[in-house]
Amino acid sequence: MTTAEIIAVGSELLFGGRVDTNSLFLSKSLAEHGIEVRFKSVVGDDVEDIGVAVANAAKRTKLVLITGGLGPTVDDVTREAVSQVTGHPLRLRPRALESIKTRLGSAGRPVTDSQRRQAFLPTGAILLRNPSGIAPGFAVKWKRCRIVCLPGVSHEARRMWTESLLPILRQEGLLSSAIETRTIQTFGLLEGEIDDRLRGIIPAASPFRLGLLASPLGVSVSLTRSETTERRQVGKKNAMKSVASLDSLMDDMISNLGQHVFSIDGETMEEVVGQHLRARRFTIALAESCTGGLIAHRLTQVPGSSAYVDRGVVCYSNRAKIELLGVSQALLKRYGAVSAQVAEAMAEGIRTRSKVDVGLSVTGIAGPGGGTVQKPVGRVYVGLATAKESFAKKFQFHGERAAIKLRSSQGALDVLRRWLRHTSPEEA
Amino acid sequence: MTTAEIIAVGSELLFGGRVDTNSLFLSKSLAEHGIEVRFKSVVGDDVEDIGVAVANAAKRTKLVLITGGLGPTVDDVTREAVSQVTGHPLRLRPRALESIKTRLGSAGRPVTDSQRRQAFLPTGAILLRNPSGIAPGFAVKWKRCRIVCLPGVSHEARRMWTESLLPILRQEGLLSSAIETRTIQTFGLLEGEIDDRLRGIIPAASPFRLGLLASPLGVSVSLTRSETTERRQVGKKNAMKSVASLDSLMDDMISNLGQHVFSIDGETMEEVVGQHLRARRFTIALAESCTGGLIAHRLTQVPGSSAYVDRGVVCYSNRAKIELLGVSQALLKRYGAVSAQVAEAMAEGIRTRSKVDVGLSVTGIAGPGGGTVQKPVGRVYVGLATAKESFAKKFQFHGERAAIKLRSSQGALDVLRRWLRHTSPEEA
Repeated sequence: MTTAEIIAVGSELLFGGRVDTNSLFLSKSLAEHGIEVRFKSVVGDDVEDIGVAVANAAKRTKLVLITGGLGPTVDDVTREAVSQVTGHPLRLRPRALESIKTRLGSAGRPVTDSQRRQAFLPTGAILLRNPSGIAPGFAVKWKRCRIVCLPGVSHEARRMWTESLLPILRQEGLLSSAIETRTIQTFGLLEGEIDDRLRGIIPAASPFRLGLLASPLGVSVSLTRSETTERRQVGKKNAMKSVASLDSLMDDMISNLGQHVFSIDGETMEEVVGQHLRARRFTIALAESCTGGLIAHRLTQVPGSSAYVDRGVVCYSNRAKIELLGVSQALLKRYGAVSAQVAEAMAEGIRTRSKVDVGLSVTGIAGPGGGTVQKPVGRVYVGLATAKESFAKKFQFHGERAAIKLRSSQGALDVLRRWLRHTSPEEA
Repeated sequence: MTTAEIIAVGSELLFGGRVDTNSLFLSKSLAEHGIEVRFKSVVGDDVEDIGVAVANAAKRTKLVLITGGLGPTVDDVTREAVSQVTGHPLRLRPRALESIKTRLGSAGRPVTDSQRRQAFLPTGAILLRNPSGIAPGFAVKWKRCRIVCLPGVSHEARRMWTESLLPILRQEGLLSSAIETRTIQTFGLLEGEIDDRLRGIIPAASPFRLGLLASPLGVSVSLTRSETTERRQVGKKNAMKSVASLDSLMDDMISNLGQHVFSIDGETMEEVVGQHLRARRFTIALAESCTGGLIAHRLTQVPGSSAYVDRGVVCYSNRAKIELLGVSQALLKRYGAVSAQVAEAMAEGIRTRSKVDVGLSVTGIAGPGGGTVQKPVGRVYVGLATAKESFAKKFQFHGERAAIKLRSSQGALDVLRRWLRHTSPEEA
């Protein structure tokens, strides 16, 4: 099995308060192609330090992935570092310069000397075109190691990885079958509760590894079958007698977690809800108070969401709730803007005014101010209304303002998901 | 000046979709005490791999910080790895066992063999008590290097760092005065253009280091004064004649970047815009199409934003644009929903209907579908309307749907910011 190392270049990753996130998708994609990442490192924008990191990595593995340091500025020195370490001098690559010119030209910008620097690549390097950015990437062979340089900008690196690099690695025989990992996304259970529900499902000595990861979006449960784990475990005296399959263990876990499971293998809540809405040909409109537009934003992150998202309103003020949703002043006065009654009236208001199938609303206290003893910060009501029924659900979230907004948006979408699950595609 | 390296231990950091966040606070605190982090690395729960990482780091620096792998389970092997590399055998440390017993006892839990493992430390190690958890940390001296092991749990590591470790490092003379860093956030210029504008401001041989970092939110420019940089540069033949101050260089940079600078030292665009709105006692309402609520979401991330955000509408469908904003069918038909004319009408519509001071609108094509030759994916119009004037600005963004939404929201807020800058707090 091939192992790989990832080197993230950028002084801002050492002391700029930033974390390297590119390595997340790289590790994931590598695992999907049977390559295990053994080391990750972060180095600053320094030719020597990058060189040391590359040399060390190349000694240990057959594949080294470097991200960052390919831009036009003087502190972008990954090209120089790789050139020096591998002994391949930098030369102007006309094809790279052409695509930089085309890219800058279409944006009406000139090719400055700084921009030209990006077209100097180590001799013998494979040019990796960057269809969504300016800096090209490249791949060089050094000793028995394939060294790949990608830009630090995530969406550029992702596309180059998939479109240009995977075919090369496949051709060179570096890819194999996936390290199997599957994930279950849940909402509504604590980590400890999940632990209790899953106890005993994974045999003690087995090639399977369970991972729980909590976030404001819920708890993600991952199950990995790794050759490394297997090899190590099998080496032990008490090797497992029989190995269950990953899929059968997943089935057991999903069944124990019940309706709290909202997706399998990484689909987001907004994607899941979108599929339900699309399958039922439902349209939806949103009335958001404390989430401030976050639910509309999340639903419209999904390509094609214009097919079911009709509109949304963000009504922070009572006046907006009255004018845009027809919530009555009497109701607001009697129960307060943060109440089950107002949540229900908001959902009903947006539904009837926009003539959609489903109205979804949120009202709550995101903090840090505005809490009371009866209704503390984090108190949130979600309302849902259709032609046949309407209801509200109460939540009490914790955390800071941003976390409460995020949890509230997830809570609201989960209310919608649970309701949609019990509605057959025929009903309206 | 001391340099340090950080090693994060944990297989979940290599392929579990987790990033190491402990290193963020460690780097920050180290910088505050004059220590520059030169490398960070991540290794799995493997004795050999940890050993290699520790040995490499100890060759290069005087301070190595390891986080993680100190727990009670079999995959917690940091103790073994450090013991093997340094040649200090593991011995039961009675004081460590005592505190583990006390801690577990008070939670009514027994001291199992697994829990006992945590009290075995390399001989000669300084014990670092863990007041908020179970696993103790430790610090050993090897060759000329101080090697420190802290738990992977953030809040435990933070407290041990401050309470136990800083005093030791101070006593050993490893700490000095802070590394100064300041940042400038810009929107509207490419990295290369910024490079050109800043050329010559930072003397070639000087203790200052410039860093540029591009994201959909703009380019962040950081300026750091570091003794290491100073020493390396001073070693060169052409040492600097005179050293400007960090603040005066910042002033020069800000002046050359002009109106593209939207904040200093990390304030977000939504915070800056919020301060302008508040100072002018303006209220605002939003009409969003392609950003789908993201602008409202961002503005309402700021505590107290309910003072100036009156409402927002997300109008994906033409019907919603007509019903909620009063945009005329004729205008939509003549120019199309994605046009300067419709953007302006949307801004004017939300302003008059909600009776606020400023109406801000966005309409565009977020993709991946919906683009044409005349109006490709990424074409976005931002409209702004007040009682006195209204206008629209055209943008052409690139990237995937999520990036285009984010860039569009930043573009719209930047249009608002530039307009607000030229409006005195007295005008309405």
